[in-house]
Amino acid sequence: MFLINLDHVGIAVNDLDAALEEYERQYRIQRVHRQVVKSQGVEEAMIAVGGSHIQLLQPLSDDSPVAKFLAKRGEGLHHVAYAVPDIEAALDHLRAEDVELIDDTPRIGGGDRRIAFVHPKALAGTLIELVESP
Amino acid sequence: MFLINLDHVGIAVNDLDAALEEYERQYRIQRVHRQVVKSQGVEEAMIAVGGSHIQLLQPLSDDSPVAKFLAKRGEGLHHVAYAVPDIEAALDHLRAEDVELIDDTPRIGGGDRRIAFVHPKALAGTLIELVESP
Repeated sequence: MFLINLDHVGIAVNDLDAALEEYERQYRIQRVHRQVVKSQGVEEAMIAVGGSHIQLLQPLSDDSPVAKFLAKRGEGLHHVAYAVPDIEAALDHLRAEDVELIDDTPRIGGGDRRIAFVHPKALAGTLIELVESP
Repeated sequence: MFLINLDHVGIAVNDLDAALEEYERQYRIQRVHRQVVKSQGVEEAMIAVGGSHIQLLQPLSDDSPVAKFLAKRGEGLHHVAYAVPDIEAALDHLRAEDVELIDDTPRIGGGDRRIAFVHPKALAGTLIELVESP
């Protein structure tokens, strides 16, 4: 198990356009990549900040997990994503340590990268995403 | 206004020792710096992950802001910190954009760096910390 980098921090928002406008107005961010990720039920915007990213997430429908998060907690910090060199090896390691996984096998996330989520009850109430960055 | 880097992500925890043990067991993290920051009412641990850090925060007393966060929301993601080259200039810029600040002037945070917090209602419910990294 080796965490290469803090790949991104995910923030749930109600209105992606409005949130991006505020990020631009307040923090003069510029490099933004937008993408609809149907498998996760979101439209996302990745904002480059140094070697990491802020990921803004707007749900595509009311049954998206991000919509449920917004209904329960409102806009705010949603998850933290770590880059790992080999996501299968990372999941094998976590299983061996009896860590509760949301995704037992990798799925395809934004940027066509392989990702998997770890249950927030495993570690300090934090939803953790692993992103393969070979 | 220029964000150099995603300096760290702050996570509120009830028990710093237990959280660090879990981070070590699950993610094999190694480089950790611990410090009591009385001005913020916390003991913190900074875990290096690539060019950023995870900051675990345990309150020193029940009237610490982090204790209030834990009582209301439980353990979890607390804030995101951006490195800026000049914190006075950053605060001047945010004031000019009518962004609500928690700290109108910088104070001293962990590592003796100058920091200031921006109110979470200013941007997507996210508590933002600015950290001066000249």
